[in-house]
Amino acid sequence: MTRSWWGWGREDAQVVGAELDSLLDRVRQMLPDHDFTDHPPPAPSSLSVPAPRVSPPSALAGLCSADTVDRLAHARGKAFRDVVRNLHGDIRHLPDLVVRPATEQDVVDVLEWCSGAGIAVVPYGGGSSVVGGVEPRFDGPAISLDLERLDRVLEVDRASRAGRIQGGVLGPSLEDQLRPYDLTLRHFPQSFEFSTLGGWLATRAGGHYATLYTHIDDLTESMRVVTPSGISESRRLPGSGAGPSPDRLFLGSEGTLGVITEAWVRLQDRPRWQVTTSVTFDDYEEAVAAVRTIAQAGLYPTNCRLLDAGEALLSAGVATTGGMLILAFESADHPVEPWLARATEIAADLGGMIGAARARGDEGSDSAGAWKSNFLRMPYQRDALARRSMIVETFETACTWDRFAGFDAAVRAAAQTALDDICGGGVITCRFTHVYPDGPAPYYGIYAPGRWGSTLAQWDEIKAAVSEAIIDNGGTITHHHAVGRDHRPWYDRQRPDPFASALAAAKQALDSAGILNPGVLIDPVSSPRNP
Amino acid sequence: MTRSWWGWGREDAQVVGAELDSLLDRVRQMLPDHDFTDHPPPAPSSLSVPAPRVSPPSALAGLCSADTVDRLAHARGKAFRDVVRNLHGDIRHLPDLVVRPATEQDVVDVLEWCSGAGIAVVPYGGGSSVVGGVEPRFDGPAISLDLERLDRVLEVDRASRAGRIQGGVLGPSLEDQLRPYDLTLRHFPQSFEFSTLGGWLATRAGGHYATLYTHIDDLTESMRVVTPSGISESRRLPGSGAGPSPDRLFLGSEGTLGVITEAWVRLQDRPRWQVTTSVTFDDYEEAVAAVRTIAQAGLYPTNCRLLDAGEALLSAGVATTGGMLILAFESADHPVEPWLARATEIAADLGGMIGAARARGDEGSDSAGAWKSNFLRMPYQRDALARRSMIVETFETACTWDRFAGFDAAVRAAAQTALDDICGGGVITCRFTHVYPDGPAPYYGIYAPGRWGSTLAQWDEIKAAVSEAIIDNGGTITHHHAVGRDHRPWYDRQRPDPFASALAAAKQALDSAGILNPGVLIDPVSSPRNP
Repeated sequence: MTRSWWGWGREDAQVVGAELDSLLDRVRQMLPDHDFTDHPPPAPSSLSVPAPRVSPPSALAGLCSADTVDRLAHARGKAFRDVVRNLHGDIRHLPDLVVRPATEQDVVDVLEWCSGAGIAVVPYGGGSSVVGGVEPRFDGPAISLDLERLDRVLEVDRASRAGRIQGGVLGPSLEDQLRPYDLTLRHFPQSFEFSTLGGWLATRAGGHYATLYTHIDDLTESMRVVTPSGISESRRLPGSGAGPSPDRLFLGSEGTLGVITEAWVRLQDRPRWQVTTSVTFDDYEEAVAAVRTIAQAGLYPTNCRLLDAGEALLSAGVATTGGMLILAFESADHPVEPWLARATEIAADLGGMIGAARARGDEGSDSAGAWKSNFLRMPYQRDALARRSMIVETFETACTWDRFAGFDAAVRAAAQTALDDICGGGVITCRFTHVYPDGPAPYYGIYAPGRWGSTLAQWDEIKAAVSEAIIDNGGTITHHHAVGRDHRPWYDRQRPDPFASALAAAKQALDSAGILNPGVLIDPVSSPRNP
Repeated sequence: MTRSWWGWGREDAQVVGAELDSLLDRVRQMLPDHDFTDHPPPAPSSLSVPAPRVSPPSALAGLCSADTVDRLAHARGKAFRDVVRNLHGDIRHLPDLVVRPATEQDVVDVLEWCSGAGIAVVPYGGGSSVVGGVEPRFDGPAISLDLERLDRVLEVDRASRAGRIQGGVLGPSLEDQLRPYDLTLRHFPQSFEFSTLGGWLATRAGGHYATLYTHIDDLTESMRVVTPSGISESRRLPGSGAGPSPDRLFLGSEGTLGVITEAWVRLQDRPRWQVTTSVTFDDYEEAVAAVRTIAQAGLYPTNCRLLDAGEALLSAGVATTGGMLILAFESADHPVEPWLARATEIAADLGGMIGAARARGDEGSDSAGAWKSNFLRMPYQRDALARRSMIVETFETACTWDRFAGFDAAVRAAAQTALDDICGGGVITCRFTHVYPDGPAPYYGIYAPGRWGSTLAQWDEIKAAVSEAIIDNGGTITHHHAVGRDHRPWYDRQRPDPFASALAAAKQALDSAGILNPGVLIDPVSSPRNP
């Protein structure tokens, strides 16, 4: 498998042929006047890549790569703005080296070298950040610390249903290694194929479960983190009240406090019973009320994904005026029909039209299945459209139910105004990826015609407008995409100032040289020195 | 209502008359040779209480009490060792003043005064700490900051089922104020009547729910905390992935980082359907396996409390060889019979003998009901026995399922050896208060005959032995009683050193004068100066 250095996923899985034709046909129907000229990525050899500014001590040289394509592929994540910059050959801020530790001791040694030499370290899992989290966006020397070789399930505790797993393992390999135990982590973010356990933990990734275990946080039993001040290892505990949770300090620390080398995570038995159905609504307000009622009913659906009318049409090919709700329950222990029956009863009470229930294995046979198979192709399709001057990107948040109607209206208004002003129009869609008793996590999609050469600036302006609206209206700047560098201005308004001081002090205690992912979450306490 | 200064709860609710006779009869059957002479508490006027060493600025004088009984009542929490010391008139380390802020601004002003004057501040909720958390166990001057006047539900968001509530409200008043909204927090620790929301948050208290929402942490939407460096207020969010959780730093901070003045907490609709049953077992190992299987089945019982044979006999009057499981499900949305049916099916498969299911309102009519009514009298009974030279105390923990059998055996062996050596014998019981997919939270009870004048030293020796066993065998030094001062030696072995450095740095950033609850969780970064 060859990873694309400039865009999402595998080079051999790009959108071509009939898939491309169909995609472009659909978009042309929306935007008949758009210029769909393809702008393929530049050849890496055509880019003038500066030589590395640092060289490793000989003991670590074997872990280091100065290969140009390697450095290009590690220079940024996979957001729309990353892809667009790559397509334009904008290659500022490359890591000087890509370093691949083979053992935890290698990680310790690399941090020691970099702390002493004043080299910034950007921890790198699968590289799927969409917030500038893996990009050395600063002037000093930097290495990208790629953890791909720490990719093993080390131990499984079948009685407690937990596994000790290395941070660098990608989603599919993790699941492959658990299969012999008949266990699964069931953490399936859209980035699943190209993201790692350590990355999920560092960014508080959201996964498969729409309720209860929404973030990887909830599946974390203990963590092992290499910091420049030593290794922090928490105890395996099902629950504890012994002071503030050590794990919760590292969950979401985005590589600024340490490198997550291992974690014990809570696993699941493979589900034997799975039922799913889709519910359509004439009225979006009623659809939202139905989701709220289901979220507060104590039923805990695995999937409770409300697509608004635009999202239902674009992603699932279903025409509704009020949106479509995909509901699913699963269990390894018992049939879940009573659960689904009560959830659909709630939906019907609020005007929902209930589709046929499907058992496992029927995926792809109806609209819910269509949505699911589309889901994993979305990032590839985004890249195909980015090459053709389209602006295709998402942003996501969460807010409480009392605010949602006003919040959604304000965010959509800000987005639509920005799209109209900047692009002369565009489409906004919304789905709920996760729902809580006290509020939903809405995930918005943007589709707009851009001008080649300007789509980065256009998107940045749109993103700023919607981020302002999110923060002004009581949302979070991110529910599960993390903060990175791109969300900093709004994160800085969101987090309490005393907490920011406490976090900066904690970082100073653990990373006194300030080498770990400078600029992410907090301003550097001390700048990395030049070597 | 007059609170007891020396023991648990209300003065007029002490164990007397028939309840006392029955209690002593039962204990005499176990320990016929014990000397049950009653040692009543000393009169406060008989104690030589030193004058306060500090006097408040005139603007704050109206909030301050130097009353002797007030100071005595705030000098320590309600652990066995606290009660015994009170009974002996051991009154070292009184707070110099009890300060009762009426507003958040008062809290700000008090912290400013104390920071400047080098006076330690011990935040005080209901005073039910059993870990030395509210005791000024140091030599410098100290105030007890009693938040009882910050006792209001300020706002309710019915749509999101959340309430903004002041930190000083006691459990019953909190529930009374929520009743008009038909909502409930459903956080019912054993200390419910004499503990506060702020105290629960500061100590990560465990509550009503045996599964899912086990700690108050899980019911917390946002917090407002007065620190000496400013007020930290997090956003109301149903979920977020924006950096490490600010709330999780303050949850469990035990008054060392700030004073929790308000929180938005997640509320519940009042349950309409409640079913409960008890299951008895011949074999404890099978009982444990049944609980594990139920905890991993995704059924989420409200109650899943396994009493071992000793606990079943002593607290519920049920004779079994393998223990008794109390199972309950509740819902405001739907009948829960399918849930209970599956849980009891699991229990029966593992040798459980299922009692009759009871709906709500039947409480007290059988063994599960007997256990429940006994539950709230336990602390009073503990005091009655403490006056009569008995050692009656609990300790609690959590561990993963794979370890449980060995853990339990090691902890019981350590306890029994200590009891035999120190007291010439004694009884150990165990119940699970909370259960998780990856492990239980066992709660042990100790009943032993002591020697008047020595019961404190005897208990401290027993406690040290069981704490060693807990830490050596992979448990947590506390699942929901907090760390305070009493658990420090074992907490210090449990928490990762780098995390301890980070936490100390965070404290230094927020409380640079080191006035907040010195000695709890972490060593003072800088000692409070003398005034």
